[in-house]
Amino acid sequence: EEEVEVAPPQAMEVRVKILFTALCHTDVYFWEAKGQTPVFPRIFGHEAGGIVESVGEGVTDVAPGDHVLPVFTGECKECRHCKSAESNMCDLLRINTDRGVMISDGKSRFSIDGKPIFHFVGTSTFSEYTVMHVGCVAKINPEAPLDKVCVLSCGISTGLGASINVAKPPKGSTVAIFGLGAVGLAAAEGARIAGASRIIGIDLNANRFEEARKFGCTEFVNPKDHTKPVQEVLAEMTDGGVDRSVECTGNINAMIQAFECVHDGWGVAVLVGVPHKDAEFKTHPMNFLNERTLKGTFFGNFKPRTDLPNVVEMYMKKELEVEKFITHSVT
Amino acid sequence: EEEVEVAPPQAMEVRVKILFTALCHTDVYFWEAKGQTPVFPRIFGHEAGGIVESVGEGVTDVAPGDHVLPVFTGECKECRHCKSAESNMCDLLRINTDRGVMISDGKSRFSIDGKPIFHFVGTSTFSEYTVMHVGCVAKINPEAPLDKVCVLSCGISTGLGASINVAKPPKGSTVAIFGLGAVGLAAAEGARIAGASRIIGIDLNANRFEEARKFGCTEFVNPKDHTKPVQEVLAEMTDGGVDRSVECTGNINAMIQAFECVHDGWGVAVLVGVPHKDAEFKTHPMNFLNERTLKGTFFGNFKPRTDLPNVVEMYMKKELEVEKFITHSVT
Repeated sequence: EEEVEVAPPQAMEVRVKILFTALCHTDVYFWEAKGQTPVFPRIFGHEAGGIVESVGEGVTDVAPGDHVLPVFTGECKECRHCKSAESNMCDLLRINTDRGVMISDGKSRFSIDGKPIFHFVGTSTFSEYTVMHVGCVAKINPEAPLDKVCVLSCGISTGLGASINVAKPPKGSTVAIFGLGAVGLAAAEGARIAGASRIIGIDLNANRFEEARKFGCTEFVNPKDHTKPVQEVLAEMTDGGVDRSVECTGNINAMIQAFECVHDGWGVAVLVGVPHKDAEFKTHPMNFLNERTLKGTFFGNFKPRTDLPNVVEMYMKKELEVEKFITHSVT
Repeated sequence: EEEVEVAPPQAMEVRVKILFTALCHTDVYFWEAKGQTPVFPRIFGHEAGGIVESVGEGVTDVAPGDHVLPVFTGECKECRHCKSAESNMCDLLRINTDRGVMISDGKSRFSIDGKPIFHFVGTSTFSEYTVMHVGCVAKINPEAPLDKVCVLSCGISTGLGASINVAKPPKGSTVAIFGLGAVGLAAAEGARIAGASRIIGIDLNANRFEEARKFGCTEFVNPKDHTKPVQEVLAEMTDGGVDRSVECTGNINAMIQAFECVHDGWGVAVLVGVPHKDAEFKTHPMNFLNERTLKGTFFGNFKPRTDLPNVVEMYMKKELEVEKFITHSVT
């Protein structure tokens, strides 16, 4: 444990007391700094829940005492992306894993003995207090239990939104989910909420199948059990292809399979997993001409400040079951 | 000139007197039989206008005297595709360039001295009379001039629908059209009708640019004039990318460019051109993750029997200018 000094929030910034934080694999990935710009020393953490302690000049959207979720990607509400109904990729506050400082003055708000400690994706929630741009702070229902909804600011919303906002499976449709980690399970949950009647989970690890039933999966395919390509296995199971697919592994072959397994005429595939930097998506263009759609999503197409409060409301109305995503609690 | 005997229509078939027919490059392509199954002797032709002469058993949608457009791809109204609002790729009557016979009995309705002459894509309009499955016959407004609207049953509708039904450019948006042949010009016309304010035509042949202004193109790019990739040229012209693109060449590089030139967050690219059988679409998957959408269309997503009559009405209301597509008339 180290004593870190957290400076007061500057213009358009918010200082938040973090009450609960979750650990996402992305934190570990950047902690290990494999193949990325190493920005050290820095404070990780980006899935959390807290209470606003103080606000800087110009901040009107939140006030001390408000319950908030920090978000690794922001919403400035002024840029073309924020003004477009179709995008959540804010020009000003889009995720930047290389930047360890605040955008207003290029400085850090963390220090130890006057020596700066860098920020991580604008959130740095592994700290008792943190400072964020107001655009990275979603104000939520104060009655929502922060120890539960703190998990909603990254992976779960990403998977949920990929199904609900982007794949939009019609009622009674068939959906394939590639990868049954937290994001894939949330995508299955989203497909279930949207009313899909067949949800096929695909994973190389069969140990995940039983758990995935709780999230709406009705059938499973382990590619290791088949000699033919997964696309063909799925086409046979579904009379020509699934109506929707959601790819949550980031593996390039799974991405191609997720696209090629959707039905011609109306199939939609949604890519969620982050690919390797040298990955190349390849397919025969006739797969598009046969009226398949391929799209990707970032943070489930949720606009963080506008939409995250509604995701919390889905939990409050018991439409979305957050508890089942929580495997371990540490106090 | 040869005397061809045209047998009466069988169950669910219609015999039509062809009054006008257009020549599409596809006719020439299959006449040359490059790399396809040669089905000869056959009667080509698939863009036409005519009047129903007689109908077979079970036909209730059209009657003798009705004005109709033959369509190379049909709509049975019974299959899953026809019942889906999102698809026009009828399972029963989807285009089949290898089949030279009627689907009911596997026989031709054309003969010379008792020797069968094969059909082409279910239409064979280069004949005074032809027999078609009722699913390939669109009944239109009898007041529409058949010598004009006969061009609506293939390429023009394909390009028009690619813009109006699939790309759906918002009002005031920027659209790139790759390839300024008849299909591309129709796509530009569709973008103009949808309310796009900047329509950028891309073609290797600068001679097409002046004509394309009549179809709504406001700017032009000739890839030969640039050393950098067209994607980058377009991104610079449009502050990060176009809102929509429509690819009408079938060239695989143009397809990739058409996808990569759309703006992140909301860009949609639509593939229309038919690719080479060995073509491979390649791109970095991050281009999808940045919230771009890629889809293809077949016959502009128009359901032939349901929607073509409405395209004819667009012409009747002077929303769609068909005359400017007609370069030559032969009597």
